[in-house]
Amino acid sequence: TQNYRITLLPGDGIGPEIMAVAVDVLKVVGTKFDIEFAFQEALIGGAAIDATGEPLPTATLDTCRNSDAVLLAAIGGYKWDNLPSHQRPEAGLLGLRAGLGLFANLRPAQILPQLIDASTLKREVVEGVDIMVVRELTGGIYFGKPKGIFETETGEKRGVNTMVYSESEIERIGRVAFETARKRSGKLCSVDKANVLEVSQLWRDRITKLSAEYPDVELSHLYVDNAAMQLVRAPKQFDTIVTGNLFGDILSDAAAMLTGSIGMLPSASLGASGPGVYEPVHGSAPDIAGQDKANPLAQVLSAAMMLRYGLNQPQAADSIEKAVLQVLEQGDRTGDIMSPGMNLLGCQAMGKSLIQAL
Amino acid sequence: TQNYRITLLPGDGIGPEIMAVAVDVLKVVGTKFDIEFAFQEALIGGAAIDATGEPLPTATLDTCRNSDAVLLAAIGGYKWDNLPSHQRPEAGLLGLRAGLGLFANLRPAQILPQLIDASTLKREVVEGVDIMVVRELTGGIYFGKPKGIFETETGEKRGVNTMVYSESEIERIGRVAFETARKRSGKLCSVDKANVLEVSQLWRDRITKLSAEYPDVELSHLYVDNAAMQLVRAPKQFDTIVTGNLFGDILSDAAAMLTGSIGMLPSASLGASGPGVYEPVHGSAPDIAGQDKANPLAQVLSAAMMLRYGLNQPQAADSIEKAVLQVLEQGDRTGDIMSPGMNLLGCQAMGKSLIQAL
Ligand SMILES: CC(C)[C@H](C(=O)O)[C@@H](O)C(=O)O
Ligand SMILES: CC(C)[C@H](C(=O)O)[C@@H](O)C(=O)O
Repeated sequence: TQNYRITLLPGDGIGPEIMAVAVDVLKVVGTKFDIEFAFQEALIGGAAIDATGEPLPTATLDTCRNSDAVLLAAIGGYKWDNLPSHQRPEAGLLGLRAGLGLFANLRPAQILPQLIDASTLKREVVEGVDIMVVRELTGGIYFGKPKGIFETETGEKRGVNTMVYSESEIERIGRVAFETARKRSGKLCSVDKANVLEVSQLWRDRITKLSAEYPDVELSHLYVDNAAMQLVRAPKQFDTIVTGNLFGDILSDAAAMLTGSIGMLPSASLGASGPGVYEPVHGSAPDIAGQDKANPLAQVLSAAMMLRYGLNQPQAADSIEKAVLQVLEQGDRTGDIMSPGMNLLGCQAMGKSLIQAL
Repeated sequence: TQNYRITLLPGDGIGPEIMAVAVDVLKVVGTKFDIEFAFQEALIGGAAIDATGEPLPTATLDTCRNSDAVLLAAIGGYKWDNLPSHQRPEAGLLGLRAGLGLFANLRPAQILPQLIDASTLKREVVEGVDIMVVRELTGGIYFGKPKGIFETETGEKRGVNTMVYSESEIERIGRVAFETARKRSGKLCSVDKANVLEVSQLWRDRITKLSAEYPDVELSHLYVDNAAMQLVRAPKQFDTIVTGNLFGDILSDAAAMLTGSIGMLPSASLGASGPGVYEPVHGSAPDIAGQDKANPLAQVLSAAMMLRYGLNQPQAADSIEKAVLQVLEQGDRTGDIMSPGMNLLGCQAMGKSLIQAL
């Protein structure tokens, strides 16, 4: 028996509901593959603010550090939107990323044949789309200093943030991206704004130098504005994309939306060592929280990514991914991916169906 | 007779070809509406680098300053891509924007019924899309300091750019956006990343305060990642969008690509006073330069925007826009917007067809 300590961070909104499904699925998979999970729950985001006044209590970070992997659901909600920024749910997420050194964020955007009609793009444009965005996650303008709101001599306020990357930060994420591309189709597109930003010039320069070590990977470069266009125009041209924190935030969401079903998309955030964080791309959807309407599949697929990337249990990961495809094949759908003639299920019922498929 | 001095900046690639068409069209419109244009040509971008070593010679900026409006085609090309950044064509464009104080960039993205099939999005998703992106153009991370590539004590390089907005910069672009929204459907969406960036918090704060002066305009806010998603998911929800320089660069290109025909899209860059710059959204397309294949319609529509916003000649602008619709209605198409059963025309032939329509 393999034993793993998993920290669960259900967070806010629909978080607890979808997390419950993922935990049930993991338990069944554990029995099947002789894996024992020791789950420990901790607070983050709005839930943590309500209980402790802080979006990321020290106890939570400690629990995460002492585990083999962290499964996160979603954070945030209208309720906490007016707090000062360092006390908001998002600050908890950023603190978790920084605290665990999770510099590499892997965001797949894949069109599933069963859900292709959910895309707002024409079938022929998106059929077969399978993009992996490798986003730098602990640097860039999210963390650069100086930052803040300052007063000038004239008493006027100025808001300031700093986009900064060092060579080693670029190289580190670059390596993850080249390795990822190598395991996929061998095509890597690096996205920057090197025609305007010096930080992007350094980025492009380092990524280009690094490519000498990966002769089997075909490297190309795009400016971020053009990349946003190309994702809409011809998404099939992309395989692996590597980019900085802010551009990755924007482009991975655009790529995700090409699929039309962001309720299906997982992500992984990895560091050099220590536990990774696995979470759905979608948010906490406070408007449908507690109504058993949420789609748990992105959370379940995040658990699969955890098994694959964090715990080195590819067979267990495969079996979850197969179960997800099977329930879709059966016609099971939650509201967000519903289409005529399919079976509309709630969050819990979708979980039951998955367990049956397993 | 009204007299106007117009500076023409044909620039690089397809620039001269499409500019020639726009000038012919303006001459005909001038005769029709009793307007006399004194055209003066000046160098910018790669063409200026080749001739003078600089992407924006002082003479060019002076000529622009002494004119009533500036019509720009496109700049850049592979040839100049490896020059140091301050000597590249793009530096000329940024210098022009800064030099003329063009803080407001208006980028319409409108689906024309005749070209709706060019969109990669489904007809029902994009039918009727009519978005105006109001992008701040002389501030933000494009111009903020410090910027550059610096060495740390350990000898490692760090690339740095600074995203900065002052209250007055935000207010200034905010006013343009509220006024624009007021003349359109009265809906304004401000896009920022206020859940992470302090500069965005100040942005959101100022825009919100300003909205008190425009009670007839309905203001909403979106985070930039969500805005990129929503543009793909349901673009019809947007009317006027206001955002900073970098986010505007990305989102206006994404919005443009929703139409599927960026060869059709004009833009206007305006200052507090003095001449504005009118230019197509598309680039210099060096791959088809000199082959009489380029689509001149965005350039022609930029001339129409010049008449409308810069010279206060709305009737002349209308007549150009009508002519463009008419040639499309007739089935005239350049290669980029060609579809089965239409008449494929070169750049010059499209110009002739426009003049006939006028
Ligand atoms: C919630 C927010 C801070 C976060 C980000 O910007 O990174 C989110 O958009 C994401 O992409 O995970
Ligand atoms: C060429 C480049 C400097 C420019 C920009 O980033 O502003 C272009 O992309 C644009 O949008 O006009």
